[in-house]
Amino acid sequence: MQSPETVGLFRFAPLRFPAVTPLIGILGGGAFGTALASSFARNGRSVRMWVRDPETVREINELRQNKKYAGEVRLPDGLQATENFQEVVRDSFVLIYALPSPAIREILLQVKQVANGKLPLFVNTAKGLDPEGVRFHHELASEVFGADFVSSRYFCLSGPSFASEMLKLHPTSVTLAGLHEENLRELQILLGSPTFRIYTNRDLVGCQLGGAMKNVVAIAAGLMDGLGYGHNTQAALINRGLGEIRRLGMAMGAKSETFLGLAVLGDLILTCTGDLSRNHNFGVFLGKGYSVDEAKGLVGSTIEGIFGAQAVRKLALKSGVDTPICAEVFHILFDGKPPRQSLEDLLNRPLGDEGL
Amino acid sequence: MQSPETVGLFRFAPLRFPAVTPLIGILGGGAFGTALASSFARNGRSVRMWVRDPETVREINELRQNKKYAGEVRLPDGLQATENFQEVVRDSFVLIYALPSPAIREILLQVKQVANGKLPLFVNTAKGLDPEGVRFHHELASEVFGADFVSSRYFCLSGPSFASEMLKLHPTSVTLAGLHEENLRELQILLGSPTFRIYTNRDLVGCQLGGAMKNVVAIAAGLMDGLGYGHNTQAALINRGLGEIRRLGMAMGAKSETFLGLAVLGDLILTCTGDLSRNHNFGVFLGKGYSVDEAKGLVGSTIEGIFGAQAVRKLALKSGVDTPICAEVFHILFDGKPPRQSLEDLLNRPLGDEGL
Repeated sequence: MQSPETVGLFRFAPLRFPAVTPLIGILGGGAFGTALASSFARNGRSVRMWVRDPETVREINELRQNKKYAGEVRLPDGLQATENFQEVVRDSFVLIYALPSPAIREILLQVKQVANGKLPLFVNTAKGLDPEGVRFHHELASEVFGADFVSSRYFCLSGPSFASEMLKLHPTSVTLAGLHEENLRELQILLGSPTFRIYTNRDLVGCQLGGAMKNVVAIAAGLMDGLGYGHNTQAALINRGLGEIRRLGMAMGAKSETFLGLAVLGDLILTCTGDLSRNHNFGVFLGKGYSVDEAKGLVGSTIEGIFGAQAVRKLALKSGVDTPICAEVFHILFDGKPPRQSLEDLLNRPLGDEGL
Repeated sequence: MQSPETVGLFRFAPLRFPAVTPLIGILGGGAFGTALASSFARNGRSVRMWVRDPETVREINELRQNKKYAGEVRLPDGLQATENFQEVVRDSFVLIYALPSPAIREILLQVKQVANGKLPLFVNTAKGLDPEGVRFHHELASEVFGADFVSSRYFCLSGPSFASEMLKLHPTSVTLAGLHEENLRELQILLGSPTFRIYTNRDLVGCQLGGAMKNVVAIAAGLMDGLGYGHNTQAALINRGLGEIRRLGMAMGAKSETFLGLAVLGDLILTCTGDLSRNHNFGVFLGKGYSVDEAKGLVGSTIEGIFGAQAVRKLALKSGVDTPICAEVFHILFDGKPPRQSLEDLLNRPLGDEGL
């Protein structure tokens, strides 16, 4: 529930678009999709969400709620839901992908099928890499739509943004990465607001890699918590974890600055210290002595860091970059290595220069 | 209290020095001095602490405790305390400064007086800048001992290291910065252990500036907590706060990489998220509506971020670097600006590129 004085605090940006603002289409009616849709609609934008479940569509349109994912929050006017995928794709100026990472290839193919040649801008909010081929999402988009699409119409939105806090209008800042300068600026104005601040960036590889790797470091941070260690250990782990994300990213052509930004460092801090993170909680259970399967069961839903650990392992071996923390997470998850042994091995590594 | 299995987990490094190891002198018997002394002594090093209070000296030497600062922890053998300043200065291979920041100039002068020309290595663990002239500690050392001393014998130890957790042998990692390569390596071996990992760095300016500025950002982080905001806001604030520390530092000749390291980012994460930080707690009280004086009273002890806010203000104005978060902290502390107004002004700044 947002408190009135919180809502009253912020001056929302005046619309810079004509009376009829371009439609923002959201693919997905989960927590993050609903939080984004609310943020945009509250800022005066027209928003249509594509939601598979007819009951949720009715709940959103008629009751102005999405109880499962947004609790008691009243959804703002200007937000409509529909089951009609084709309508959302065809009518939208920009499509926001807010579905799980593994579904992206299929959705891109469906968009192509129904778009009829007139492609909207595409903003991907899913994190993670395709684990099979260790490909980035923009590479999948390039396969489906061609390289021109990626360089002009593909964007990636990432940063420290728990949906539950966005719904309460807590100030939230994110990175929007993309290659097309003008569209990047236009999206920044269209999608941003005082409580949802969007910073622009041109590094698709760094933002996506950071988004995937931070989940692996978050598992390690949870492990340390579970083993009973405190703030010193946590801070060092986040710090050294960022170092290895950055080393691997730079070996893959990402820019150094991206790793200091919201999509990597910001999201890493959130995921490692926020008690709302599944990856972190999964690590806590492992540190407390539960097996991988038990810990999975206790967390219940998808743990993206497990796929992330596999992907990072492949990338690290391929590029010859040393990623000791992610490697230990991989050994714990897939080779049955005891967490205490991993910690001991990390602590007994030779000491060197603060080469980040 | 350390648990036995925690102690048992770590293999301590074999001594690489001759049978009689060089003496480590610690100036200060507070929490951090005691934690460092314990860490070194547990690793087999000879340690002598200079402590002003004779009662504490007796407690350490006879009861192997320092109840006020280390609670019930039993201090390891090989750690002795003394009231004799001259003896510690003359006998020590390395002196560790573990007293409050404002006393450093006076102590450096006293060291000069008693050292009789034979100067030990000097490791400064105090954070903060001299608020008067906004000078760095190494500049004070250079005034007292000359520039050669700084380039060969002066070092700065910094990083995420709550004393209470070090005493429990929680894995802790820090940065040791200095200009003399060989001495830097020697100190890394002498002072480090598996649970106190030391990474080397050559950027005295960056490490010191980060240590001072992080306290200012921690006040801002506490403010957001006090205003009722959650993880999204916190993560963004730490992230953007690091950005302005880095911008200012680079304008002053620091190296970009230092800001990603333990002395800046690591310590910033600790100070902003750890509930043991005075600066953070001070900010929480301000955010809840207490006045600056009331909040000072509630925290009780010195809040380094208040001096930090003044120093950063001077440096930022002098160098023309934009430091919006630190500027708002300054206005709240010294111009009576209401925290909510500061937050609103921050959120309504024009949005731009993720220029860190």
